[in-house]
Amino acid sequence: MATLIAPSNHSPVEDAESLRKAVKGWGADGKAIIAILGHRNATQRTLIREAYQNLFQEDLIKRLESELSGDFERAMYRWILEPAEREALLANIAIKSADKNYQVIVEISCVLSPEELFAVRRAYHNKYKRCLEEDVAANTSGHLRQLLVGLVSSFRYGGSEINAKLAQSEADALHEAIKNKNKSNDEIIRILTTRSKTQLVATFNRYRDDHGIAITKKLSDEGSDEFHKAANLAISCINDHKKYYEKVLRNAMEHLGTAEDALTRVIVTRAEKDLKEIKEVYYKRNSVHLEHAVAKETSGDYKKFLLSLMGKEE
Amino acid sequence: MATLIAPSNHSPVEDAESLRKAVKGWGADGKAIIAILGHRNATQRTLIREAYQNLFQEDLIKRLESELSGDFERAMYRWILEPAEREALLANIAIKSADKNYQVIVEISCVLSPEELFAVRRAYHNKYKRCLEEDVAANTSGHLRQLLVGLVSSFRYGGSEINAKLAQSEADALHEAIKNKNKSNDEIIRILTTRSKTQLVATFNRYRDDHGIAITKKLSDEGSDEFHKAANLAISCINDHKKYYEKVLRNAMEHLGTAEDALTRVIVTRAEKDLKEIKEVYYKRNSVHLEHAVAKETSGDYKKFLLSLMGKEE
Repeated sequence: MATLIAPSNHSPVEDAESLRKAVKGWGADGKAIIAILGHRNATQRTLIREAYQNLFQEDLIKRLESELSGDFERAMYRWILEPAEREALLANIAIKSADKNYQVIVEISCVLSPEELFAVRRAYHNKYKRCLEEDVAANTSGHLRQLLVGLVSSFRYGGSEINAKLAQSEADALHEAIKNKNKSNDEIIRILTTRSKTQLVATFNRYRDDHGIAITKKLSDEGSDEFHKAANLAISCINDHKKYYEKVLRNAMEHLGTAEDALTRVIVTRAEKDLKEIKEVYYKRNSVHLEHAVAKETSGDYKKFLLSLMGKEE
Repeated sequence: MATLIAPSNHSPVEDAESLRKAVKGWGADGKAIIAILGHRNATQRTLIREAYQNLFQEDLIKRLESELSGDFERAMYRWILEPAEREALLANIAIKSADKNYQVIVEISCVLSPEELFAVRRAYHNKYKRCLEEDVAANTSGHLRQLLVGLVSSFRYGGSEINAKLAQSEADALHEAIKNKNKSNDEIIRILTTRSKTQLVATFNRYRDDHGIAITKKLSDEGSDEFHKAANLAISCINDHKKYYEKVLRNAMEHLGTAEDALTRVIVTRAEKDLKEIKEVYYKRNSVHLEHAVAKETSGDYKKFLLSLMGKEE
């Protein structure tokens, strides 16, 4: 369930006018902006963008970008976009990043539903005049490229059928492939990039039952190169993305200096989807409420904004 | 342009009733079936299928399958389906075929527009409860698998922008890769599976200008394994699919004993699209009208049906 609290009725025109007041003059009124945009769902935000453009002949996103700054600006910029457009942006930033962090690419490919992923690919065309897999392929090589391009290009079957025989044979195939190290990555790639999520979960369960160890654990025991890391991430995202996100949040706040990009990304992308369950998983694992942890690690408008997306009543 | 001649007005109910008459009793009335279905576009055929189902609680496709036979039956079965459903069927038949003929897979991936290809992938889900790339991957291996899975999973950018510098560097990269034989197929795969068609055509032109030989010619000089054949087919389909189809038709009729599957496939899939231009290319190349060649090589209702799809007036 979502954590976002949005009114069922709102006037896009009134919202646009209030936002105009909040961004005019010396220094933007962060609180007023959060009071509106921190409580509107994706459809409502799009209507507000349109109303703002019509009323003031100005792009609301550009205006907010120039008025706000730092983590608050980045979080607001990501939030205001439509989900597919936002994921396309996040993918593009990840591809261009100097540190070659492919976590976001794997996350988008493996957490989103097949139809959602396709919407991101379409949004990527519109925004960048190239295709997502083209940029991923041009910035990678070898088995890592094959895996990442396969994941972003996938359109997995979405049904709930499970083929138990296939789960057995592919759990065996994965076991062999992991044992052979880099000699049989082809099979790991084929299985992870083409099978349905339901089928893959059955295969991972079969693996654990047969070998007494989780496949992710085995994979990280056998290799820690980029390919193994990406394969591991893909499995975690497919297996239980809420647990995966809990870990991302925990890591983001455990390090000295919070990793704001990761924190923002998880809260912004999940607030309208299942952040409620992710909060529960977080509490179970850390015995601390996610809101408290976030409040401790952040400050100012950025903090207010994240908490409002997390369902804190004003 | 299409060759199909379809009325702008038709009554799905009347058509369904006439078809019912044509399939009832001893032996179906092929001529009557062709007079209707050989002159209806995809939307009209779908409406007829629905009307037939409602009126007679019977699936028109199944009825036709049981009443007709041979090449006529196979052609009619392919024709009556919606385009995406038909391409999904053709892909599935190709994957399951004992002779591992991947021509159809390459053709569908490289001739269709990115959005059309995606519609085929969606139709494949609905029809087979698996995804297209999953079946392609499970039946191939090595570089051929990478190429074919990459092609069927592609969602190329559809814009007309050309990056001349990129065309130059990738023409060079392709040249190097072809020279190195199987050592650098990765780059061939990356370029062919991710770049936009417009960009690729610019790259192929650059290649010919720089090396005085068409890239397809060079590729077949250097290797004749399945990977090289598939890469060559992909380039031909992307470069000029009308010329490609002319060759398919010519080969289908040149051999001793016509290759009916190929003949049917081209006529059925292009009759509503650009068979008129393909006919012109055929005439230019062979100094024989395609209709005459087809009429010479086929007979009976199958012949009548193909000619009617090719625009022959009754």
